[in-house]
Amino acid sequence: MSEFSFERRLRFADCDPSGIAYFPSYLNMLNGVVEDFWGDIGFPWPELIGSRKIGAPTVHLTCDFSRPSMFGDLLTFKLRIGKVGRASLHLAHVVSGADGTRWRAGQILAATSLENHHAIPWPDDIRGALERHLHADEGTQAVSS
Amino acid sequence: MSEFSFERRLRFADCDPSGIAYFPSYLNMLNGVVEDFWGDIGFPWPELIGSRKIGAPTVHLTCDFSRPSMFGDLLTFKLRIGKVGRASLHLAHVVSGADGTRWRAGQILAATSLENHHAIPWPDDIRGALERHLHADEGTQAVSS
Amino acid sequence: MSEFSFERRLRFADCDPSGIAYFPSYLNMLNGVVEDFWGDIGFPWPELIGSRKIGAPTVHLTCDFSRPSMFGDLLTFKLRIGKVGRASLHLAHVVSGADGTRWRAGQILAATSLENHHAIPWPDDIRGALERHLHADEGTQAVSS
Amino acid sequence: MSEFSFERRLRFADCDPSGIAYFPSYLNMLNGVVEDFWGDIGFPWPELIGSRKIGAPTVHLTCDFSRPSMFGDLLTFKLRIGKVGRASLHLAHVVSGADGTRWRAGQILAATSLENHHAIPWPDDIRGALERHLHADEGTQAVSS
Repeated sequence: MSEFSFERRLRFADCDPSGIAYFPSYLNMLNGVVEDFWGDIGFPWPELIGSRKIGAPTVHLTCDFSRPSMFGDLLTFKLRIGKVGRASLHLAHVVSGADGTRWRAGQILAATSLENHHAIPWPDDIRGALERHLHADEGTQAVSS
Repeated sequence: MSEFSFERRLRFADCDPSGIAYFPSYLNMLNGVVEDFWGDIGFPWPELIGSRKIGAPTVHLTCDFSRPSMFGDLLTFKLRIGKVGRASLHLAHVVSGADGTRWRAGQILAATSLENHHAIPWPDDIRGALERHLHADEGTQAVSS
Repeated sequence: MSEFSFERRLRFADCDPSGIAYFPSYLNMLNGVVEDFWGDIGFPWPELIGSRKIGAPTVHLTCDFSRPSMFGDLLTFKLRIGKVGRASLHLAHVVSGADGTRWRAGQILAATSLENHHAIPWPDDIRGALERHLHADEGTQAVSS
Repeated sequence: MSEFSFERRLRFADCDPSGIAYFPSYLNMLNGVVEDFWGDIGFPWPELIGSRKIGAPTVHLTCDFSRPSMFGDLLTFKLRIGKVGRASLHLAHVVSGADGTRWRAGQILAATSLENHHAIPWPDDIRGALERHLHADEGTQAVSS
């Protein structure tokens, strides 16, 4: 499988006084989607972070918000792996509602040691899992678009 | 004045179980900085949004996180206007700690009517205030870099 | 049915630098549970708040946190109606993990008009739905305990 | 000094689609106030939690929200120590806006070891600082009211 899909309802807590999704809440939702993706490929964060002391902080993020989302909307988050670097992971996200794409994001995560927050190469088992899900043909472009 | 500066202490609530700033919290802080900037140029959001029914949602965002921030760090957020479009505003942000730049962001806000969430041109008084603070020479590049 | 049950995984975003659930995040989760409860009894908040302009803000809250929850824990939120007042609703919450109760809360919501944020009596259809789910025998005590 | 006072502006991010303060955001603000209080009495949390591995999680909380707060409101948080237990600290909070009290809270924090999240007695230096700020005459009642 090369694409992951997660559904999220836009909650009261995620909306702002102007009546639409608050963009930092969108990114909080995105982080939860990435967390679920790691669980789906066999590396749940509580284990990765808690036991193995490996973090995967975001080092780059690009977002384009094209249509507003309203309180109660059901959103579909689609995630593809664009590239697996030595110590990085490029993800491409498309978030849609009933009327089509609401926003897109390109995100780069870095593998880090939680002892000192320095970059480390992905351990072999993690790299293996990431590469099995790599969508080689379209991924890189999607991230950089 | 063409640069705005705001200080923020990284709070307990802004940090994650790996011990560093949670990036959606960083963007929540950034949104607060932009809110203060609007107050500083004479258009506090409670009035803009509440009385004039004008919103300024983020339509584009690019972030590069270069060094982690730790719980308790004092951060300086510097904000410059890169460009004032007909219905948009380009902002460039640099966030620094004691050891230099921690992260940078380029952000584009759109003027919208809160009746229907459609783009509208900036009203003249707002455009005038934004242009008085425009840093013409370096702004545009910084946003797109 | 007189008891509602919802499962929530404790996410990265909900935990603090000391490694356990951040209590305001717990209350954010609780608010989401209450939101889902309203949907389950036939009055989803987007409709109640957006179309009917009726709010249900929290006017009283009592929480006892007895055991810490860790990142990744699966939590069960159980909700019972303790009392339906003229313009109020008493809820009793018990939140459990694998080792038993983690925390309990008593919460009182008030029916309000979103035009002026004043209390209003529950409309008949809402009162009817709430009373059908009232757990008369134990409810009131649980809230006030 | 036996009372601490902190000002907070109610931000865009703290308000909900019904236009008033979101109560979990209120508690996030309260947690920031408690964090500042610890800094003021000489025990900043980054040091307490990071170096000394002592946590002060909330084990009990009671809140009464009497008047809504609107986006942009300036709030004053007043904090008094009600009681210093062997391993606990009782705080009483009153939060006011221009028209008087908006909400009140009683909160009990527990001293814990961050190695195992078990209760520990307050170390002597911390107990000394807390007792110097104890408001003996009114404190206990305010917490339990």
